[in-house]
Amino acid sequence: MFSLVRGQRCLRRCSSTLAAVAEKKDIPGRVIFSGIQPTGILHLGNYLGAISNWVKLQNEALPNDDVIFTIVGWHALTLPQNPKELSASRRDMLATLLAFGIDPSKSVVFYQEDNQCHVELSWILSCLTPIGKLNRMTTWKSRLAAKRNANDESEVDESMLNAGLFTYPILQAADILAYRATHVPVGEDQTQHLELSRDLADTFNRTFDPRKRFFPLPSQLITPTKRVLSLKDPSSKMSKSSPDVSSRIMLTDTASQIDRKIRGAVTDSIQGVTYDPENRPGTSNLLSILAACEGVEPQVAAQRYEGKGHGDLKKDVSAALEEMLKGPRGEFERLRNDQEYLARVAREGAEKAKERSQRTMSAVRKMIGLF
Amino acid sequence: MFSLVRGQRCLRRCSSTLAAVAEKKDIPGRVIFSGIQPTGILHLGNYLGAISNWVKLQNEALPNDDVIFTIVGWHALTLPQNPKELSASRRDMLATLLAFGIDPSKSVVFYQEDNQCHVELSWILSCLTPIGKLNRMTTWKSRLAAKRNANDESEVDESMLNAGLFTYPILQAADILAYRATHVPVGEDQTQHLELSRDLADTFNRTFDPRKRFFPLPSQLITPTKRVLSLKDPSSKMSKSSPDVSSRIMLTDTASQIDRKIRGAVTDSIQGVTYDPENRPGTSNLLSILAACEGVEPQVAAQRYEGKGHGDLKKDVSAALEEMLKGPRGEFERLRNDQEYLARVAREGAEKAKERSQRTMSAVRKMIGLF
Repeated sequence: MFSLVRGQRCLRRCSSTLAAVAEKKDIPGRVIFSGIQPTGILHLGNYLGAISNWVKLQNEALPNDDVIFTIVGWHALTLPQNPKELSASRRDMLATLLAFGIDPSKSVVFYQEDNQCHVELSWILSCLTPIGKLNRMTTWKSRLAAKRNANDESEVDESMLNAGLFTYPILQAADILAYRATHVPVGEDQTQHLELSRDLADTFNRTFDPRKRFFPLPSQLITPTKRVLSLKDPSSKMSKSSPDVSSRIMLTDTASQIDRKIRGAVTDSIQGVTYDPENRPGTSNLLSILAACEGVEPQVAAQRYEGKGHGDLKKDVSAALEEMLKGPRGEFERLRNDQEYLARVAREGAEKAKERSQRTMSAVRKMIGLF
Repeated sequence: MFSLVRGQRCLRRCSSTLAAVAEKKDIPGRVIFSGIQPTGILHLGNYLGAISNWVKLQNEALPNDDVIFTIVGWHALTLPQNPKELSASRRDMLATLLAFGIDPSKSVVFYQEDNQCHVELSWILSCLTPIGKLNRMTTWKSRLAAKRNANDESEVDESMLNAGLFTYPILQAADILAYRATHVPVGEDQTQHLELSRDLADTFNRTFDPRKRFFPLPSQLITPTKRVLSLKDPSSKMSKSSPDVSSRIMLTDTASQIDRKIRGAVTDSIQGVTYDPENRPGTSNLLSILAACEGVEPQVAAQRYEGKGHGDLKKDVSAALEEMLKGPRGEFERLRNDQEYLARVAREGAEKAKERSQRTMSAVRKMIGLF
């Protein structure tokens, strides 16, 4: 399994001596890759579930690691989009990533659609993907259902399926393999797709490069997922598509909006504050948010509420959220008003992404005979 | 239907005065586009059925017409290939096109895989293609059957189908639409695919550009198809996959090979030479070949054989073939030994192709919101 982690797994748990060794260019680093849809302004659940992990991965990367993040506009096309909104959303997403700590001098950050290598590799991989395997991937059903605000997946059927939505797991594999990524931080709902990436990497290797195994099989980076629940219905996740805007904290919410939403959050009628996700989901959700803001465990955060009530907890959650969000919120507004800078970051990111993926594609073209 | 032919349909049948008018740059010309698979050395059927038409289209194009030919390596991947053979075949195909009269100063000629705009547009169009529509395209069955030397399509099934083969009609549409082509010379077996290209152009226009109708709906260029039959079994077409090499004339055959194959061609036991494709397919096939070499109708060619026999006909066919092929054959060998020149032609062709398709893609990205 050497190729899987490119010899770095041991280095992850080790002393500064080993870290210093890793600085030598002859030890290959990990290639960490992930992508996010250009959905525009994010909510707290997106931030704590994905972006904050990305920032952590970036900041804890070793000198030889390559950290690559992309905003995947081509994937967005698999569901109908309003072009004007899509155009604004992708730029807002870039501004969000930068405002919340993705640093273009540490990570490669770019728009997927600025690097055509992804679609080229996707075509090549599609010729190695049996239709039967795609038929067994059913995540398109949940994506369609969510887009249509359907109650469940039985309300959508194949007549609504387009070829892009049907084949997007292949493009996702290409996104990853174009950089010969070794580690991919993805949510649990994407495990099936990462499995396809590993399958396709393996099929490619066996077909075209049996001895050297050109593509590492990317492994899932398990990051502590913080599941943030709806403030109004703690039986479901915080979601952008919920019609009730007060059910979610947007990353651009002002102090007073945050305060109003947290004060109106559904808790329970049990006295006192304890962390008990099963029986007290609303209260526990607020404790989880507070804990995430402070970088502690929810159980630890709960201890200080002995003899206190929901009102105290809500006041603290509002304050902690405002403390965490106010800096990035200002930075987001500043970046949003500097489209020239955003365009430059995107251009420079795309150059770096292309340089890396073109190395992959030159080798791939030679192996498959298209040269 | 203005957009369909970009105002040129009338000009095709008209006097030199109108042709002179067309030279003015403000009258848009036709965009003629076609592609061919990199199958290596071609046989006579390929030449008379496709390449000779391309050369004719190129040489009869008006000054404002744009004539674009591509060797489609990405399509070749939809069936298993030997990488070394594929690499040689694509270069042999380019040498063949040039040797038989495609002139890089008159036509844009390039390798599909050198222009990533095709796969980008293919992805975008795939998001507009209902899976149901692809399910109704069944040409993959005949391609799989041919590759596997199956007797008929019932011997292949969906378990052998990969996503590339399933979706290649979309890539074909992208090949065409990337240049906003108006005219596509394709064989009858491709009518269904051209229909998909028109459908997708129309869907894109209605979705993203209802007023200006960005993509012309490409129309099929009906060219006189010369169906060349097997020399050994005149009930089937001349084919590269037939196990009997003497059933076909390869474009690289020497004079003595041509002579031997034509002398061994199956005719019939009826005395004399007449053109009667139904009852005398073998004899009529030889007359058709002779007529195609001389640029006359087979019925006309038949007239000179009154009182003569198959031996006379075969002698004339061999001589006419040698006369037609000897120049290009020598040129092919010369080009094959000048890989540097071939690479330069391909590079310059790709530059021209990219320039044209990037204009299309810049506009497309704006319309769909990915900018």
